[in-house]
Amino acid sequence: MKEDGIGPGQIIRRKQDGTLEYNRDELTIEEPLEIRIGNKTVATTMRTPGHDGELAAGFLLSEAIVQPRDGIRKISKRQNRVTVHLRANTKFKLNSAQRFGTISSSCGLCGKENIDAIRQNFPPIKSTSLRIDIETLLSLPDKLRANQSDFARTGGIHAAGVFLIDGRPRIVREDIGRHNAVDKVIGRALMDGKLPLDRHVLLVSGRASFEIMQKALAAGIPIVASVSAPSSLAMEFAREMNQTLVGFLRPPSFNIYSHVERVILD
Amino acid sequence: MKEDGIGPGQIIRRKQDGTLEYNRDELTIEEPLEIRIGNKTVATTMRTPGHDGELAAGFLLSEAIVQPRDGIRKISKRQNRVTVHLRANTKFKLNSAQRFGTISSSCGLCGKENIDAIRQNFPPIKSTSLRIDIETLLSLPDKLRANQSDFARTGGIHAAGVFLIDGRPRIVREDIGRHNAVDKVIGRALMDGKLPLDRHVLLVSGRASFEIMQKALAAGIPIVASVSAPSSLAMEFAREMNQTLVGFLRPPSFNIYSHVERVILD
Repeated sequence: MKEDGIGPGQIIRRKQDGTLEYNRDELTIEEPLEIRIGNKTVATTMRTPGHDGELAAGFLLSEAIVQPRDGIRKISKRQNRVTVHLRANTKFKLNSAQRFGTISSSCGLCGKENIDAIRQNFPPIKSTSLRIDIETLLSLPDKLRANQSDFARTGGIHAAGVFLIDGRPRIVREDIGRHNAVDKVIGRALMDGKLPLDRHVLLVSGRASFEIMQKALAAGIPIVASVSAPSSLAMEFAREMNQTLVGFLRPPSFNIYSHVERVILD
Repeated sequence: MKEDGIGPGQIIRRKQDGTLEYNRDELTIEEPLEIRIGNKTVATTMRTPGHDGELAAGFLLSEAIVQPRDGIRKISKRQNRVTVHLRANTKFKLNSAQRFGTISSSCGLCGKENIDAIRQNFPPIKSTSLRIDIETLLSLPDKLRANQSDFARTGGIHAAGVFLIDGRPRIVREDIGRHNAVDKVIGRALMDGKLPLDRHVLLVSGRASFEIMQKALAAGIPIVASVSAPSSLAMEFAREMNQTLVGFLRPPSFNIYSHVERVILD
């Protein structure tokens, strides 16, 4: 018994009937990860360990730090540090790397200016005849859950997944941070040479904020769905960048916030 | 009708019965806020507008940027920029201000080192005879909701509140970001000269991560409750810093992860 009255690995649970019991703690792991390019620290973020190389690759992609984006030669890992090695003739810039929850302090003071700044790194999605039908869209949350770990299903961890337009799951990743889960997914796609994901749908378990949309755009994803609420700026961003944004995807209902032409509604 | 098929201020909703309707969009506002000390930009964060001065004050407090913490003379605001003016003989340091979702890249690579680094800025909570009873604890989620706006109750926005140990609500704030909601609460308390909040409970609507615990510690709050899951590092932090951490507070049940001696269980 520790001095705080709860032993190592233990928690106290009050059950529905009011009785108390000691349980094992089963918590989502949260630890810092340092991301380096060569010997330069680019960012340190709190994340759930696992797929750390993907997280680094996805972060560097979605923040437009490495140019060209396929300039990563190798990613090595030692404990909680990932080191990214670039190819010859590959540059990196850190001025836009202020975030992981933050945006660059240089990129303006209103949402509109942010969108313009991001547009310089990532072009809007091209219009194609790509469309998803309602039944496929409605099937995605169950498929995301089916590809998560047992523990994740208890809550406390976020998931992100990319699916082909016909609903087949391609990459599903988990993390305590919403952004990290998306970075892991698009980092995997980058490492496999699968970008752009222009025939794919991204589903996120949490809210769809501005930054989630930015990451999807960086990977060329035309349709983003969230089981929760989007923000105002996410919607504005999606409309400008030609992304279809679906929110509150809770079968049988959902909302469409932008570019409904990619959803077969009838 | 805009080119994306959805008019300004409109969304398309698929209802439970499968029919479609156009609704007004009612989304949580997300816009950048620049925080300055004098003419120096300290951080830019995405936030829900409102109580921006409190957000800035709470951020500067919880990141230990301004020393002493009561060194803020005045906070002025113009559009999406808050400028903090310090008193004479007040210093600020930016080395720990890398975050808003990030931790300082200088503060180590494992959770234990992070905790040690934070300990240098904020002492652990002092042990006192302060205790909360179960019925009061169980009443807090309803009280938090009762103090939120109508819109907030639909989801899509986070809330944080501090309550006296007898359950009376003191400050409740909302934001699209979990961290921001807490910063607004403790920033208000700082501006009112109410720190430390050593007879108070902090309740957050989201998960309890490491950074939420750090913010609570910065304000001297001995008990933190979350309606959702804590992270492993939040629990470790709470045990080290003498904070009581309650998770999954969903009446009639909850979990206690640390320092159970502050909860009257019988």
